Amino acid sequence: MSRITSVRTSDVRFPTSLDLSGSDAVNVDPDYSAAYVEVATDSGERGYGLVFTCGRGNEIITAAMDSYGALLIGQDTDELVNNLGDASKRLIHDSQMRWLGPEKGVSHMACGGLINALWDIRARRENKPLWLLLSEMPVEELVSAVDFTHISNALTPQDATDLLQRGQEGKQDRIAELRQNGYPAYTTTPGWLGYSDEKLVRLSKEAVADGFGMIKLKVAGSIADDRRRLSLAREAVGPNVRIAIDANQRWEEQDAIDWVNQLQDFNPYWIEEPTSTDDILAHAAIRKAVHPVKVATGEAVQSRIIFKQLLQAGAIDIMQIDSTRVAGVNENIANLLLAAKFETPVCPHAGGVGLCELVQHFSFFDYAAITGTMEDRVIEFVDHLHEHFAEPVIVTGGRYQAPKRPGVGAEMLDASTTRWTFPAGAGWQELNAR
Amino acid sequence: MSRITSVRTSDVRFPTSLDLSGSDAVNVDPDYSAAYVEVATDSGERGYGLVFTCGRGNEIITAAMDSYGALLIGQDTDELVNNLGDASKRLIHDSQMRWLGPEKGVSHMACGGLINALWDIRARRENKPLWLLLSEMPVEELVSAVDFTHISNALTPQDATDLLQRGQEGKQDRIAELRQNGYPAYTTTPGWLGYSDEKLVRLSKEAVADGFGMIKLKVAGSIADDRRRLSLAREAVGPNVRIAIDANQRWEEQDAIDWVNQLQDFNPYWIEEPTSTDDILAHAAIRKAVHPVKVATGEAVQSRIIFKQLLQAGAIDIMQIDSTRVAGVNENIANLLLAAKFETPVCPHAGGVGLCELVQHFSFFDYAAITGTMEDRVIEFVDHLHEHFAEPVIVTGGRYQAPKRPGVGAEMLDASTTRWTFPAGAGWQELNAR
Repeated sequence: MSRITSVRTSDVRFPTSLDLSGSDAVNVDPDYSAAYVEVATDSGERGYGLVFTCGRGNEIITAAMDSYGALLIGQDTDELVNNLGDASKRLIHDSQMRWLGPEKGVSHMACGGLINALWDIRARRENKPLWLLLSEMPVEELVSAVDFTHISNALTPQDATDLLQRGQEGKQDRIAELRQNGYPAYTTTPGWLGYSDEKLVRLSKEAVADGFGMIKLKVAGSIADDRRRLSLAREAVGPNVRIAIDANQRWEEQDAIDWVNQLQDFNPYWIEEPTSTDDILAHAAIRKAVHPVKVATGEAVQSRIIFKQLLQAGAIDIMQIDSTRVAGVNENIANLLLAAKFETPVCPHAGGVGLCELVQHFSFFDYAAITGTMEDRVIEFVDHLHEHFAEPVIVTGGRYQAPKRPGVGAEMLDASTTRWTFPAGAGWQELNAR
Repeated sequence: MSRITSVRTSDVRFPTSLDLSGSDAVNVDPDYSAAYVEVATDSGERGYGLVFTCGRGNEIITAAMDSYGALLIGQDTDELVNNLGDASKRLIHDSQMRWLGPEKGVSHMACGGLINALWDIRARRENKPLWLLLSEMPVEELVSAVDFTHISNALTPQDATDLLQRGQEGKQDRIAELRQNGYPAYTTTPGWLGYSDEKLVRLSKEAVADGFGMIKLKVAGSIADDRRRLSLAREAVGPNVRIAIDANQRWEEQDAIDWVNQLQDFNPYWIEEPTSTDDILAHAAIRKAVHPVKVATGEAVQSRIIFKQLLQAGAIDIMQIDSTRVAGVNENIANLLLAAKFETPVCPHAGGVGLCELVQHFSFFDYAAITGTMEDRVIEFVDHLHEHFAEPVIVTGGRYQAPKRPGVGAEMLDASTTRWTFPAGAGWQELNAR
């Protein structure tokens, strides 16, 4: 028998605020960071998870992972990784810690980091990347991984079973196709608010040359700037490349409607995070008022319960799942199934640090074993910080290539985590010494 | 000039799980706890705040208060406590830490603890208990304390000003009345799930004898138990005392409807937390289906943004604000104004540890300077752990008596925090030695 012997967390931060990469109307100076965790067993196994943050506060997530991690120490590894539905509930629904959320914010993200590390152990045991593990997992086990609490009025276990059964047909062909051709991406690299017009135009043209069919621009600084930047970007990419825009929750309901309608000239494809992601009713109102611009949200959606309501209320056109905002793989299976039930495309949020590496698996799984379609579906790509990962994403010709390494994708290089541990790592010491 | 010199947190826990006080269908074994904070200035001032939790995880809140507290160290005290709207935004909207929520869960509650400590300093400076400070504060300053972000589609600064202006009329008489007669309470003491039938009946009768016009029972363990317990309670209190029931988010939408309708015989006054408090749409559906039983929620409502939607959607009859779930006094002013705008009674959640001491101030303020009515309004009371506070609540004749001591009510006795600091305090050491 194998037992969990340690849960080791690291506060890893990268000084991205120095060059305004990742700047938007709300996140003006992020230092992209990972609250990183290694779960170890007495049989020598290792599983890795992480939670993305914007810098300050990363230490709160590691503290929370330490606290939740204590619930795992000494537990039977087999029991955990062979019953990942139970394992996730044991953390999320801990009778005392539940009060900290329930199922939202720091505590929920911390659970997600640990749950992903358990999935990492499971995937390594089966020698498969997560997307393939999920795609080849028996339907019953997938269903048992989902927590239907507070979503069963929209998605029952029977619904989930039916959706996954339907996804079995042609699955092997789709897995082969994914290995061959990958999955479409879009890029946010050109569009950060902190970039000059010249850089925006140059990077937009490069994106098209690199094969991307869609780019994304941050908006909501000033309407004049947004009109100018959108005009430049539209000119740079031509009429046939989609341009999404992203307000990072900057607006009130009416502001969102007015602002987006002043950008209709440039044919934006979607408006992302027009207002608080907690505001289901405002999203529904905005969606009606900005047609034909689509409404997208999700990187800050705290749980499947909010996603469910966004779908029930007809408040979004695009669901943007995030790999480290919710409680790990289990909750993202629930999110994918909810989207499939409501026939809403999932276009995952990525960027940050590690988010591309982790979230790609869900789109691959969705295509292989749930919806079987890539229509209007793209995974976000930002060309940042991939070099710190054991298996950096590969995006070529505007497409994510299928990950091959066993695991969930969160493992970082020791050299990177050591150098950028905050505040003691050599990278930070050198910056402070300047 | 005075500056903030220290933010000292303590993890204070009481072993309430030993006797099942506070047990319900979800919180089966809480150790009522306070993540306690003392903010000190170089001029010798002290302000106290706390965040209530159920035990494990209390250390995550203290860690978060340490992190946010670092943003206060060295700041100008006057600038903070004379511009409490700006002070609260400086914490809540910190450009990097915002990602941890935004405005929900651990990070939001931690901000609330610190913000309350700043209000505590302000109230002590003016030598007033919080309720009186707020009641006598100029309308413009109250409005400036509110963060209208993501609620302005339901409550504008002008709406807030109008409501508060209207509340000025007759205010001095109402303040005098509050000092004389206090504010009505209801009691949850009889109704914990862990109590025997005998204890339930005895405590229910005592509640009526003590002057309470309403009691509350925890439900959602089993329908047979609930019918028996409600029947016993109804017999004990008679037809004219209200009995509220509380499911602590235990149910799915349809379960809630079916279960509550099986309890209609006993004329329950409200059903509290029938399902996830994040689920606005389910609350709206439940409210329609369980009429005439009213729907109440709030102790786990993460922010004013969720309360706003519950009101917009007609999803609740009763708003239950909580003193330590949201970001402090400022956000509860917003919540009171939202309730007033939607003409919905506020019946605060209390109990736990310190929640009664803190939350009473908001009902007193609401009566004095916002709605001017106590109709269908009651503050929860649980007779637990008050002895640990510098000014324990006084409830006589079923009414909260007006607090007199300057401050927000969070200050605890040194002897209590020392004895029950977890895990090193003598109280915990003695329990462990048993």
